[in-house]
Amino acid sequence: MSNSSNSTSEQSTPTPAQDVLVIGGGMAGLAGALALRENGASVTLVENAPAFGEVGAGLQMAPNASRVLKRWGLLDKALDIGVQPKHLVFRDAVTGEELTRQSLGAEFEERYGAPYVVIHRSDLHRILLEACQENGVTLLNGVFVEKVETEGEKARAYAANGDIYEADAVLAADGLKSTLRKAVAEDAPVPSSYVAYRGTVPITDATPKADLEDVIVYLGPNCHLVQYPLRKGELLNTVAVFKSASFERGEEQYGGVDELEEAYKDCVPAVQDALKNLATGIRWPMYDKNPIENWVSGRMTLIGDAAHPMLQYLAQGACQALEDAAVLQEVTQGTVFTEAGIDASAWEGAFRDFNEARAGRTARIQRTARVWGESWHVSGLARTLRNLLFKSRGDGNFQYNDWLYGQSGEGVPSVEAKSTKALAN
Amino acid sequence: MSNSSNSTSEQSTPTPAQDVLVIGGGMAGLAGALALRENGASVTLVENAPAFGEVGAGLQMAPNASRVLKRWGLLDKALDIGVQPKHLVFRDAVTGEELTRQSLGAEFEERYGAPYVVIHRSDLHRILLEACQENGVTLLNGVFVEKVETEGEKARAYAANGDIYEADAVLAADGLKSTLRKAVAEDAPVPSSYVAYRGTVPITDATPKADLEDVIVYLGPNCHLVQYPLRKGELLNTVAVFKSASFERGEEQYGGVDELEEAYKDCVPAVQDALKNLATGIRWPMYDKNPIENWVSGRMTLIGDAAHPMLQYLAQGACQALEDAAVLQEVTQGTVFTEAGIDASAWEGAFRDFNEARAGRTARIQRTARVWGESWHVSGLARTLRNLLFKSRGDGNFQYNDWLYGQSGEGVPSVEAKSTKALAN
Repeated sequence: MSNSSNSTSEQSTPTPAQDVLVIGGGMAGLAGALALRENGASVTLVENAPAFGEVGAGLQMAPNASRVLKRWGLLDKALDIGVQPKHLVFRDAVTGEELTRQSLGAEFEERYGAPYVVIHRSDLHRILLEACQENGVTLLNGVFVEKVETEGEKARAYAANGDIYEADAVLAADGLKSTLRKAVAEDAPVPSSYVAYRGTVPITDATPKADLEDVIVYLGPNCHLVQYPLRKGELLNTVAVFKSASFERGEEQYGGVDELEEAYKDCVPAVQDALKNLATGIRWPMYDKNPIENWVSGRMTLIGDAAHPMLQYLAQGACQALEDAAVLQEVTQGTVFTEAGIDASAWEGAFRDFNEARAGRTARIQRTARVWGESWHVSGLARTLRNLLFKSRGDGNFQYNDWLYGQSGEGVPSVEAKSTKALAN
Repeated sequence: MSNSSNSTSEQSTPTPAQDVLVIGGGMAGLAGALALRENGASVTLVENAPAFGEVGAGLQMAPNASRVLKRWGLLDKALDIGVQPKHLVFRDAVTGEELTRQSLGAEFEERYGAPYVVIHRSDLHRILLEACQENGVTLLNGVFVEKVETEGEKARAYAANGDIYEADAVLAADGLKSTLRKAVAEDAPVPSSYVAYRGTVPITDATPKADLEDVIVYLGPNCHLVQYPLRKGELLNTVAVFKSASFERGEEQYGGVDELEEAYKDCVPAVQDALKNLATGIRWPMYDKNPIENWVSGRMTLIGDAAHPMLQYLAQGACQALEDAAVLQEVTQGTVFTEAGIDASAWEGAFRDFNEARAGRTARIQRTARVWGESWHVSGLARTLRNLLFKSRGDGNFQYNDWLYGQSGEGVPSVEAKSTKALAN
């Protein structure tokens, strides 16, 4: 690795070539690195931050994502530290009335081939990070890649510190505010006008018992609140998301903590009390982008939020990053990774296959997350209709889950992927 | 009857007294007159128009109303001329997709004690009119009552032509634009911004077969269209109701026929084609009023639309007039009409009982009709929620019908009323 220059000039000496360079050390980058390493690639992952880690609080891992962990032999680790909630419960935030519930027990797990798990983001991140380390992914911090040359014999990634990385293929996993997405789209994040605050607090004897077993979502006009337990029931996770009045007024730093109480003033005491659990030091304005069809530029593909940033209402951001990695693992088997060894000329085609397999599904999830979120925040007649609709749904009714959690479908990773690792190494 | 004066001065000679004076010859007036005549009262009904009759097209008589006809022995006449539709079907007007259907067959009829019947308004009106005539109700045309003195030994009604009518009790059945309601409330009709056009056309071989068996309601953004057969399937009835753009602009003569086509421009061809069936000579702006608690002033009570004008979305205007009459029949039995004869001093108490029994139910229907109508005309997310809600409803699900059509409940007429006619006469 060259440290001799802080420019991106051609004079820099490239680092020793690897098969795959992954740019970004979030969920998508780690999962993508692990998936291709599992296939037998030599993988280097570079991350801009000075250390690997995750900010944030809880994360809901639906079965479509826990199936991927299961494939990689990591599900037990997630279950050791996470919680399997008994139900997903929706309540009206103004009346407290229960609107609908989905049991997450044996029938659910059997139908979808894996359990519903809630886990601290940092715990899932650490599980993936350790798996990368144990499997020999090279992990580098403090590297900000500004640009990638994606055409030619090798892709070349230019870091802000002057380093240049050569690789046969690049995964651009640099998230919502992706720098590398510019290679295929010039779009900026779309603000949703909603802001989230999160928090985890220790569970005590005073914590309402019901909050310890379920994922509970309170739906209110222009706001909602989510609660569930973490760390084997030691922590209570709370997320409050509300429409910012100051965003509507056009202010740049919108959704300050001063707006919190007002946003929930019509809600039941259980919701208002839960606001005390929030860590108000970090404000999370919620963004997504419109779906785009093409994620691939030559030897580079976008993956995770860089490819399909979505609003959080379906809790699928991390889940879709895991799905991306699993499908990438599949499409490169038998193409890039063959019985005869690695065929570096097959990367571009494999990336296009990956893109084609995944873009439809992730676009649907991006769009559905927007509408689903809208339906959480309605008032007046639409709220009446929403509540009647939710209440009309029987617990055993999987029609709203199958498309997302089901084990088959366009772009859904196979349940059991055959490993070509032994062949490719 | 005195024709000597066109003032309402005390010098006029009252007409010979009757027990009951009914003011207004619409459905409510005829039904009220018949109900009290059945109990044994001598009844005079006065109507402003030069002849008795009804404008308008079809009318849906739900079982809560056909039960009242059954009580009076008039249901067979209604069935002879009307149609028993097989289903009530809701469709999305933009896609044509069926959203939900209610079978109106044997199970429905048994549950609610009477059939669902659609009938031409003029046919139902004639059936009630003939029953009044046959039972000895005195019917007078061309009499406009401007004012009623409701206190004292007798009520005195002052007509515009100078005539004065004395009666023990007065039913004010002068409709939506009731003059007599001023005795208890000073409220004006509330415009809904929607305008209806109606029409009946002969059914031909070209008429789509499905339209001949069901009541079909097409729900569109800011518009809807209703179709059903009349007269044993010889006529097709069509009602188109849309939000008037010129009302929104503040124009007084809003909802002209020029707005029709534009209002339905996004609808399926079946809906657009049906607009040709409308009689465009009469424009029906849709009004209601807010519920009021008190309908009684001394010896006079409001009844029908004069008491509780409602939007048409539940098709309950005429039905509630029939329910009013049936409950009035009940509360006056044993109070006004006793084994010992008629106790004229009991009228005020009986009217208050009637008012108390009925005001809650009719207020609920007035309010529900507004919301129900709103839900028909939504667009965007609310339309998506409405459609999902409607589609989630099973045909055998009576939860949305029981409160309205059910045979028991606060303010619902008894299924079998005991007749005191024999006693009172």
